[in-house]
Formats: sequence, structure tokens, C-alpha cells
Amino acid sequence: MKMNAYVAGVGMLPFGKHLDKTLKGLAGQAIQLALNDAGIEAGELQAAWMGNAAAGVVTGQEMIRGQVVLRGMGIGRIPVVNVENACASSSTAFHQACAMVSAGYYDIVLACGYEKLFHQDKARSLGAFSSAVDVEDPDGALNVVKKLAEAAGEPFDAEGAGVNRSVFMDIYAMMAKKHMKQYGTRVEHFAMVTAKNSFHGSLNPRAQFRDELSVQHVLAARQIIDPLTLPMCSPLGDGAAAVILVSERKARQLGLRNPVRVAASALVSGWDFDNPEDSVGALAAEQAYQSAGFGPQDLSCVELHDASAPSEIQAYEYLGLCPRGEGGALIESGATRLGGRIPVNTSGGLLRKGHPIGATGCAQIVELTEQLQGRAEARQVQGARIGLAHNGGGAIGLDAAATVVSILVRDN
Amino acid sequence: MKMNAYVAGVGMLPFGKHLDKTLKGLAGQAIQLALNDAGIEAGELQAAWMGNAAAGVVTGQEMIRGQVVLRGMGIGRIPVVNVENACASSSTAFHQACAMVSAGYYDIVLACGYEKLFHQDKARSLGAFSSAVDVEDPDGALNVVKKLAEAAGEPFDAEGAGVNRSVFMDIYAMMAKKHMKQYGTRVEHFAMVTAKNSFHGSLNPRAQFRDELSVQHVLAARQIIDPLTLPMCSPLGDGAAAVILVSERKARQLGLRNPVRVAASALVSGWDFDNPEDSVGALAAEQAYQSAGFGPQDLSCVELHDASAPSEIQAYEYLGLCPRGEGGALIESGATRLGGRIPVNTSGGLLRKGHPIGATGCAQIVELTEQLQGRAEARQVQGARIGLAHNGGGAIGLDAAATVVSILVRDN
Repeated sequence: MKMNAYVAGVGMLPFGKHLDKTLKGLAGQAIQLALNDAGIEAGELQAAWMGNAAAGVVTGQEMIRGQVVLRGMGIGRIPVVNVENACASSSTAFHQACAMVSAGYYDIVLACGYEKLFHQDKARSLGAFSSAVDVEDPDGALNVVKKLAEAAGEPFDAEGAGVNRSVFMDIYAMMAKKHMKQYGTRVEHFAMVTAKNSFHGSLNPRAQFRDELSVQHVLAARQIIDPLTLPMCSPLGDGAAAVILVSERKARQLGLRNPVRVAASALVSGWDFDNPEDSVGALAAEQAYQSAGFGPQDLSCVELHDASAPSEIQAYEYLGLCPRGEGGALIESGATRLGGRIPVNTSGGLLRKGHPIGATGCAQIVELTEQLQGRAEARQVQGARIGLAHNGGGAIGLDAAATVVSILVRDN
Repeated sequence: MKMNAYVAGVGMLPFGKHLDKTLKGLAGQAIQLALNDAGIEAGELQAAWMGNAAAGVVTGQEMIRGQVVLRGMGIGRIPVVNVENACASSSTAFHQACAMVSAGYYDIVLACGYEKLFHQDKARSLGAFSSAVDVEDPDGALNVVKKLAEAAGEPFDAEGAGVNRSVFMDIYAMMAKKHMKQYGTRVEHFAMVTAKNSFHGSLNPRAQFRDELSVQHVLAARQIIDPLTLPMCSPLGDGAAAVILVSERKARQLGLRNPVRVAASALVSGWDFDNPEDSVGALAAEQAYQSAGFGPQDLSCVELHDASAPSEIQAYEYLGLCPRGEGGALIESGATRLGGRIPVNTSGGLLRKGHPIGATGCAQIVELTEQLQGRAEARQVQGARIGLAHNGGGAIGLDAAATVVSILVRDN
């Protein structure tokens, strides 16, 4: 979808384990930071799209998750839409907010993502992920793992699947195995992704993990499920991120310095495809490139959904950063590292910045905005002009239930 | 918000206790009915807004509630937005869908509401309602009841509040007491609301309750909480309702007979107001009337949020169907009964058609569409031309967390 909305301000808290903060507290702080960044008062907001995925399971808050946050800041009397799309919840909120501003309905709106995944009872945290697949499917998430195992020609461990880990890691592991068999991708390539993102995370004060890891360290870490070691899996996390979007008219009025424009955003749900190259990620990217009038060769930087290290390599390919099957070669070339041809996940990505699921989509927009405005400090991509955000969520058939790809442009 | 979208088709299942049906099954059937009504194939849908409130608590399905329904019908590759706003979830979905079509983004979209509230464990069904208030508030929902009791000058029963009933009935009871003290409204007036809606429900094959109740019967029924007897409270229910919306261009292409246009829809979140006349219901109505260019005097029929019988009387007033304090007199006059000046809840309303919370908003649109198209059979309002739907959800401060008021017009 072609968009014409401007990012007036962004805010986020460091992702991590925030047992001392409430869900409302986390979200409220991120929103306040974004308002401050935009120089806008809370009372000026005309509508809000609030993305959260797991509060129902983790804290028991359902139904009016946005209103309880906003009331705490004195915000009411406006349209509040609570949006859920698993790990793509807040990119969906961002997508809807951009569309409404681009259509001319509002001049100043909020898109926000927030999540508390940590709970004293770890089973409850992991349980949240089981609500992101079809619960009426007799075999639930295991069925997805089984089908992927079949596709990869791998044995399916019905007993061990999803035990002591999010079942999504089983899904990613099977996808990784298929990629290895099909294209000769090696486990070292996955370790290189984590190592690169750990370098980026070491430069990001809001990353959950700041230590830089070597490829050897990643390979030697505890195995979660073959071929994934612990640092190849995105962690549990708490966090919030907020974006203030304004119309072109309002952007002019505010006299935004270094205005960042949302040029396109595509939201696509998954389906049962026959050809893996038809996957929802590829379709969303294709739609976003077409709407924006840019291609992958035009991008300065990318924040993509590295829920696992192999996920990043697959995304390289379906986002068009390299040809099919050459994702391993791309990470090996160093092109996606800060200073390379097309730096990917300069924030540290989901692997190192963290992945409080409902917050991730808006956090990607925070990183891209700071990059395009030249205020990413030690992580700055020189001359960054066009950025792409890619956020996927949930499982349907053999693919993500929802994927959002957005393209942001520095307008001067 | 001014809208320009057309209702191409509607569908709903009889509301009731559907222990034999899955949530997906319910929703899928309603969507198929709406597609049939519109003469549109599932594959023609370009986007979907899916409203559900309680599945997370009742069935464990969160995050991708729409995708699991749509996949069952072979629908994918489109934007799917899962929307939650408590009892106003599917009117919020409808509002968003209308806005996107009116903006010209899509030609054919789906808005759907669906809910399974019945569960073998009744505590789980009632528990769903506790997730529609601020769960981080130390006193939770009880705090709302307490504040309302204070405002009504009534004792607050901290031990008994919400026991064996939805805590929302405590909220409605306190609001009713305040109305009685302030305006001399009597419990008979509340019974008249239920009696009227039971008459309407007796004419609606899709109503959960078909028996007609007398005022005496309603008064003599088991008391849930003073002054509410059982038939003055909307019941638990399962159900689904779906609406196919199309652009003006598509409406012309389809050659819709008796086209029903959505002229306006306002979505407003609650806030902590000082003056009850500022309530969210009044604000949403004011915005909708202004956008549509119509006033309450122009309405042919109304579907409003009678979650309890007194709620209907309060809504008469803030929707402008009568002056403040005269809601009791309005029901007594017979004006809101089929054949009266302004028939209200010809479907039977939430009290008798039923209230599967996430489904209610779209079900109101189903009833209004059939009324405006002259196909409401025994419930037909003669010459119906303009209809209003009012749907509220959740509690924030002392008011609904979200309210949607939409105005539909017969275009020929």
C-alpha cells in the first residue's frame, strides 16, 4: 500500500527483563519518549493503534489493552484500536496508523507496541507462543513442525518438540535444516548472523544483550534444538516502542528536521502455498517495493525479523537482498554488517536487541528512523536514505500468519 | 468520521449455546452466509478486520484469531487485522473496514465478529469479563463498582460484588440506581425494556430467546443484583456475524438492489470525565450525527447496547432519542416498540437476541441492513430509511472503554 505519512517522533525503552515495571508503565514511558521526541503533547493525539500479543496469557489483560495504557497518561476521547497479529502486532498497528493518516483522516496519531513476556512462571511465558498457532488444530503447533520436518526430510520428534522452549524454535530449526540441504548453507552461517548482530547490539544502548559474541562462541553454546544454539534464538523480553505519525500537512507545520516519510507498507496474511517462493514474506516485500517505487538495490539499511539466526538468512533471500540460496554467502561476505553494502539489523535485531513480541514492529521503526535521521551514533549507516522494516508473526500453514514490510525514506 | 462504504451482504448464525461448534466453525459459517448474500466469492475479499474479545480466555486462541478462521475458508494473501475492543470489538472492526474502503484502499472487504463464551467451566466464561477492565488496578473491577456506588449514594458490597455474575452487572446496577434517584426512573421501566425486547426477539428467528415476557414476569424473576432481575441482564452466548463492505464503485458494478450506505461511524475511547453528560456514548453519537448530517429525529430504527435493561434507558438519552432523564417516560410511551415512533432493538437486542460479546457489533449491522432493505419480515419497520447502531465495550474510569456509533442509510 502506498503511504504518505511522516514519523514525527519515536521512543523506546531498553528491551530486557523488567520484572519491576508493569505493562502499562513500560508502554507509557515509551509513548512519553516518542511525544517528547516529536515535541507533541499527549492531548494532541487524535487516534491510537495499540499492538500487544501476549498480555492476555501473561498478565490477564485482554480486550482494552490500549485504553488502560492511555488512561494512565490522561488520554481519552479518541479512537483507540487494539490490534493483535502475534509477533507482527505492532507493525500491524503501525500499518493501520499510516494508512489512516495517509488517507487524510487524522493529522497526529500514535502507533505503539508493548509486551511483558517475563513471568515468574516460565511456562506461562512459553505458553504465550502456543496461542499464536491454530489452537483448534488437533495437533496444534506440533503439526506445523511435523509438516516442516517432512518437507526437510528430517525425523520428527513428537515427544521432544516444544519442550522447555518455544515451539517456534522447532519450526525455525526445521526451516533451517531444509535450507541447509537445499542450498548447502552451513551452521557457521547461522553463527555468523548472531555474531554480526551481537556486534551491532554492542553498539546499541537499548539492546537486551550488549556483549559481542564470536562465531566460535555461538557455535559452542548450548544447543536448543539442532542446528540452533542458544544465541541463535531470539530471547524472551519485556519492552515497548512508540511512533508518532503525522500527515504531510502537519509535518510541514511542525517544521520537522530531517523528515522521515513512510512511503509504503504492505500487510499480508499467510496461506497454504505450494511453492515456498510464494511465501508471505516474498509477497509482502514485492508489494512494498512496488508501492514505494524502490527495489532492494536502493536500500541503505534493513531491520528484519531474525526470530532465529537462520530466519535472517531466509529473509535476505525473500526480501531480494540476494538471489535464492545465496543467503549464506551474503552473511559470509560481510555485506550485511555495519560498514557493508547493506547493513542488516543495526539495532542488534531480535536476536540481540531483544524480541518482546508485540513491541518488535514499532522498535524496528524506531531504529530505521534514527538511522535515516543520522542520529544512530555508533551504529550509524553513513548516508542512510532508504530503510526497510520486515516483521512476521504467528504460524499458519507453513508460513507466518502475518507479515508487514514497510519502506521509510529520508525526505531531504 | 464521514464514511462512504456500502453493505453488499450480511450473515449471522442464531446466537445461543453452541457447545457443538468451534469458534472457527461459527465464524466461518457467518462469513459464508454474508458472501452468499453479497454474491461474492471468498477469493474476492481484499482485506479483513476480525473482532473477537474473549477467545484468549475461553479457548486459548490469541494473536492470530482471524487467520485461523479465514484459512479454514481458503482465504490468505490479504491483510488480516485482529481487532479487540471488549464488547465493541466487531463494531471497531466494522469501523476500520468502513474507513479503509471509504478512503479508496479496497473495493471488497470483510468485517466479522465472533465469540464463544460458553465453556463447561462457567468461571472461565465469567472470567472473560474481568479481562475487560484494568487488571493492573489494585482493586480491579471492584473499584469501578465502588466509585459508581459512591456516585449513586449506595452502599458498596465488597464481598458480594461480581460473585456468580459478571462484574459488569454490578456496574450496570449502580448506574441504574443513580438514574432512579436522579430522575425518578422505576424498576418497572427496566422491566418494560426487557418485555419490549422480548417481543421483538420473539419475531427474530436468530434470537437466543424467543419467548415473549410480560413486565410482571420480568419483575418477578430471580434477582441478580438489586434492581436487576435475570431477564434484565444480557445472557452469555456464542455466535458470529459478518458484513461484506464494498466501495461505491464496486456497489455500482454489482448493481446492488436496495443499497445500504454507511454514512458515518464514530469510534471513541472513554476517559475520566467530570460531567456524566460528557460520557463517551454522547460524544460518539454527536460525532456520528455531525458526520452523517442527520440528527436523532431522522432515524427510522436503532440497535443499541442494552447489555442490561437500564443501559437501554440511559442510551435513549445520550443518543438523543429523548431529553435527559426522560428515558423512563420514553419506554413507557411505547415509542421504541415495533410500530412506535422510533423502534429500538427490533432484533431483540443484547437482552434477547443475545450478546456473544465480540459478535454483537456486526450483528447490529446485520439487523439494520435487513431493516433498511425491507427484508426484516415480521420485525420490519415500515419505510425504514436511516438506522443507527450503538455498541459499547469494556470499562475505563466510570464509562465504556470504547464506543462505536454508526449511521446507515438506504440509498434509494
